[in-house]
Amino acid sequence: MTNEKSPLAPDSFPGLSAIDGLRLKVSSARYKKWDRCDLTFAELAAGTTVAGVTTRSRCPSPEVEWCRDALPHGKARALVVNAGNANAFTGHRGRAAVEAIAARASAHLGCEPREIFIASTGVIGEPLPIDKAEAGLDAAFSADAASWEDAARAIGTTDTFPKGATASAVIGDTTVHISGIVKGSGMIAPDMATMLGFLFTDAAIDAACLQAMLGRAVAKTFNCITVDSDTSTSDTVLLFATGQAGNARLTGPGGAGADAFVAALEAVCLELAQLVVRDGEGARKFIEIAVKGAESDASARRIALSVANSPLVKTAIAGEDANWGRVVMAVGKAGEPADRDRLSIRFGATQVAENGLAVEGYDEAPVAAHLTGDEIEIGIDVGIGKGRATVWTCDLTHGYITINADYRT
Amino acid sequence: MTNEKSPLAPDSFPGLSAIDGLRLKVSSARYKKWDRCDLTFAELAAGTTVAGVTTRSRCPSPEVEWCRDALPHGKARALVVNAGNANAFTGHRGRAAVEAIAARASAHLGCEPREIFIASTGVIGEPLPIDKAEAGLDAAFSADAASWEDAARAIGTTDTFPKGATASAVIGDTTVHISGIVKGSGMIAPDMATMLGFLFTDAAIDAACLQAMLGRAVAKTFNCITVDSDTSTSDTVLLFATGQAGNARLTGPGGAGADAFVAALEAVCLELAQLVVRDGEGARKFIEIAVKGAESDASARRIALSVANSPLVKTAIAGEDANWGRVVMAVGKAGEPADRDRLSIRFGATQVAENGLAVEGYDEAPVAAHLTGDEIEIGIDVGIGKGRATVWTCDLTHGYITINADYRT
Repeated sequence: MTNEKSPLAPDSFPGLSAIDGLRLKVSSARYKKWDRCDLTFAELAAGTTVAGVTTRSRCPSPEVEWCRDALPHGKARALVVNAGNANAFTGHRGRAAVEAIAARASAHLGCEPREIFIASTGVIGEPLPIDKAEAGLDAAFSADAASWEDAARAIGTTDTFPKGATASAVIGDTTVHISGIVKGSGMIAPDMATMLGFLFTDAAIDAACLQAMLGRAVAKTFNCITVDSDTSTSDTVLLFATGQAGNARLTGPGGAGADAFVAALEAVCLELAQLVVRDGEGARKFIEIAVKGAESDASARRIALSVANSPLVKTAIAGEDANWGRVVMAVGKAGEPADRDRLSIRFGATQVAENGLAVEGYDEAPVAAHLTGDEIEIGIDVGIGKGRATVWTCDLTHGYITINADYRT
Repeated sequence: MTNEKSPLAPDSFPGLSAIDGLRLKVSSARYKKWDRCDLTFAELAAGTTVAGVTTRSRCPSPEVEWCRDALPHGKARALVVNAGNANAFTGHRGRAAVEAIAARASAHLGCEPREIFIASTGVIGEPLPIDKAEAGLDAAFSADAASWEDAARAIGTTDTFPKGATASAVIGDTTVHISGIVKGSGMIAPDMATMLGFLFTDAAIDAACLQAMLGRAVAKTFNCITVDSDTSTSDTVLLFATGQAGNARLTGPGGAGADAFVAALEAVCLELAQLVVRDGEGARKFIEIAVKGAESDASARRIALSVANSPLVKTAIAGEDANWGRVVMAVGKAGEPADRDRLSIRFGATQVAENGLAVEGYDEAPVAAHLTGDEIEIGIDVGIGKGRATVWTCDLTHGYITINADYRT
């Protein structure tokens, strides 16, 4: 994390609840010429269940394919995360690296290879060096326990700060905990991004139930953020449940305990997702786009993402310009049902356009004040239905160009 | 055109064939505080037929609605183009301005209002001032004839150079001419953009036939360019046929004369479309993305546009970085059928990835040389079918941010 820390970063890494049945380790595999930990190993107690959501890219990394194959079995004993090399688009050599990591880790733990989950992020097109991965894994096994912050740093690439979040819920009369870390700052778009998120809970939850809960939470959180509309080949969010809390095991949806757990899970996912936006490459402003009055929730989400991904909207916000005309443009290009003459738009708390017209003589002072801040709200009322969605993005600045026009060199 | 001329601009405005039955005029309506012509009036001979394609935005300007209503009648006597004010998102006041212009122009010419075609581009959300439009129209009527270059300049907004193209075709034994002008440099994406294009021919062609020809040409040209993925509320391409050339009238598709005309029309549209890309806001490199081996032509186009609209690909090209990993990412996120292990990518004439793997030891020198130039070719072979498409875009630079973070102020 050599880049300057994002101005939208929180002051410090939060205190995350420990999760019984989880041991975090980090080591230096030296995937790049750097002096930092870049391999993270999370050892999980026997009986841990797992759920996951992966990229919708048609060109996924071998790690993604490995996790997809392993997820239906629902059991996990370890997670291995490599930083600096995405191992994507590396053909059979990339696949061989993943199999070697799974073999090595499962031999250490005496479990099946498919109980090892693997994620890698970084440069595309260069096979992950197996010798470095194996040496890094061995070093991690014998290392002392790492902190949440150590692990959050070790999974990062172009991130400028480590990201973590935590919450708890009561199931029956047992308090369970969820803690998670995430990495990602560019190539971020819904349906996942160059984003890796790992959540851990001590709750006892069946794998199928866990999968349903995670899918629901991701749809409203990780899949509602975008930095640059670009979707990675490697995106992965995994949720591990060690079952050590001693709660009455959750086996299906519904019930007070399940509802409480889902609420806590969504809170952690939302906080992690928003932290990714706050570390958006070059970001200077955090933008919330709230759409209501659309034909459906799905339509509202597509409209919100069209606005969030519009370079003209994102540069206007960077320029602190209340250019609602560009918002209209982005609503129009979404291709969703909309009626120009019913559309209303606000910046912050100030309505600037109503029913298809600029609000005559609206007070520009609070709008200007809102736009000079670093937390921007754009509200859109499509005016034709009851569909709602909220997405989060950041502005598009010179910093994004600087970072991405000069990444490999 | 106060901005610095794009480095991708041609040296000079080309010589365009005169079109019998067309008289061009320009005037200063002073839609903004500037000292330039911003109203263009094209008077067309009685009997002129017209075809048009407009934005797919769900929030179109009243001008777009006016043209859509008038097009089915197929007749035109004049075109009025306003620059500096898009008159979009202005409710009934915007509609009233359009009706006033049509009334004034049709009164001058003694024709029906629906024979007047109107387009406006510029700032959104401020109703076009009717008094200025009417005074500008009156001034244009009494003005001397303007040149193609005068008109090409008068329709421009953030354009850094005037854009025109010309071609001819033989129908029977009659040579017919097509000349056109276009404006646009940002908010450019397929299915039209803040782009206004006006083509004129002296050929005699029935309106329905003309519409079919234009639709076909636009699909392969104007709808295959993108600067920033943003689509305007005002995009319009109109084609007027004065019928003064004396050719045997074209009434339907097919036949040598129609084929020749379509080829010439496509050539003019392609040149105009590429000129828009060459004036892309902040553009320093012109990029052609040619996709083959896709499941269908439509799938190839969606893949090509996904690459062309990827901020990470566009910044890599700006940085002269042969980052084919980002191309893979953009192919993957298109959501189209693709097989990672059959994908091949070239920069210029050099294959850098084949069948899902980097070409070992490929010669980096010609790739580096190609990327330092200002005409970049990216070739993608999806490897699964026979679908083909080519699209054109430009790189994403600090210039784009500077222009768009500081547009209204």
